[in-house]
Amino acid sequence: MDQRLEKQLAFALEIDKEKNVLRQTHLSGHGRRENDAEHAWHMAIMAYLLREYANEAVDIGKVMLMCLIHDIVEIQAGDTYAYDSQGLETQKAREDAAKESLYGMLPEDQKRELIALFDEFEERETAEARFAHAMDNLQPLLLNHSNQGGDWKAHGVKAAQVYRRQEGTRLGSERLYEITDRILKENIRRGTLEE
Amino acid sequence: MDQRLEKQLAFALEIDKEKNVLRQTHLSGHGRRENDAEHAWHMAIMAYLLREYANEAVDIGKVMLMCLIHDIVEIQAGDTYAYDSQGLETQKAREDAAKESLYGMLPEDQKRELIALFDEFEERETAEARFAHAMDNLQPLLLNHSNQGGDWKAHGVKAAQVYRRQEGTRLGSERLYEITDRILKENIRRGTLEE
Repeated sequence: MDQRLEKQLAFALEIDKEKNVLRQTHLSGHGRRENDAEHAWHMAIMAYLLREYANEAVDIGKVMLMCLIHDIVEIQAGDTYAYDSQGLETQKAREDAAKESLYGMLPEDQKRELIALFDEFEERETAEARFAHAMDNLQPLLLNHSNQGGDWKAHGVKAAQVYRRQEGTRLGSERLYEITDRILKENIRRGTLEE
Repeated sequence: MDQRLEKQLAFALEIDKEKNVLRQTHLSGHGRRENDAEHAWHMAIMAYLLREYANEAVDIGKVMLMCLIHDIVEIQAGDTYAYDSQGLETQKAREDAAKESLYGMLPEDQKRELIALFDEFEERETAEARFAHAMDNLQPLLLNHSNQGGDWKAHGVKAAQVYRRQEGTRLGSERLYEITDRILKENIRRGTLEE
């Protein structure tokens, strides 16, 4: 087999491991914990279906790919919970090491392309990155809302923390932020999210 | 909330259930059974990375979306194993009913669009559908090969059956079919796939 294809297939097999990286979010119906691959799949489809609500015009193919690959680094760096302040401090260094090592399995041009796409996501400076982040926030919110805020309760997360994180949703989509705000207010009123 | 967005979010929550539809394929490292959402995520990334091997030029954004949504019907229709001849007889009727019911949750324009994309995948008459099918075959092959053909052995699947299915890979990518053929021959030689 030529070296290029060999590298591509080795990478394809390696990312299978993302299915074993567990998140703090639980599936709807009070199911088991979700994994990164499922989360990424869900975000990519939501991005496509909800693209009309992006604040700015987006290249939707690019947003979808960004959603699909944004957590691959967690195969080595592990998942960092959105409200784990200690983990968040070391997250960037862990993910930077992982991105070199994992994307380094690919042919050089694809390594460069996917690292650039991952960095673009992280830097949130393009319309695509901002909309992908809105999906990264909205997807677990929908699940958690359907589960009566179980994930917030399990981690003692307060409304102010969730609102801080959801500022990222507003940058990607004012319309989806309005819905987020409505969902959060409903959870506060019901007592499923602490003030 | 306006009705359109309400429908879109209800659909987004509904497809969470795809994460509970189990396939016969096992994750690499002799892991647990894979689910449809993980499979779709994996296929979509592979499609992007391997698009240079498609027999014909493809709209890769469309291929990725096709990969992502191609198994949503299985939330209601269930997974049909590639070598389950009885299940294959009823598959189309089960999936047709499911596609009306599931995509029917979306606003009419998106319902029509996604059903058309699903039908295009099933009919295999476009370059995008053929390449997506190549991914649908290659992705589990890579996992099964990494697990010493465990899934073939568990179901008593013979080489001729696998070769028949992999004809679909050839229609999407001659180059990836060559690799498939090499992998199958290696498994036959090792005794991990019965002649």
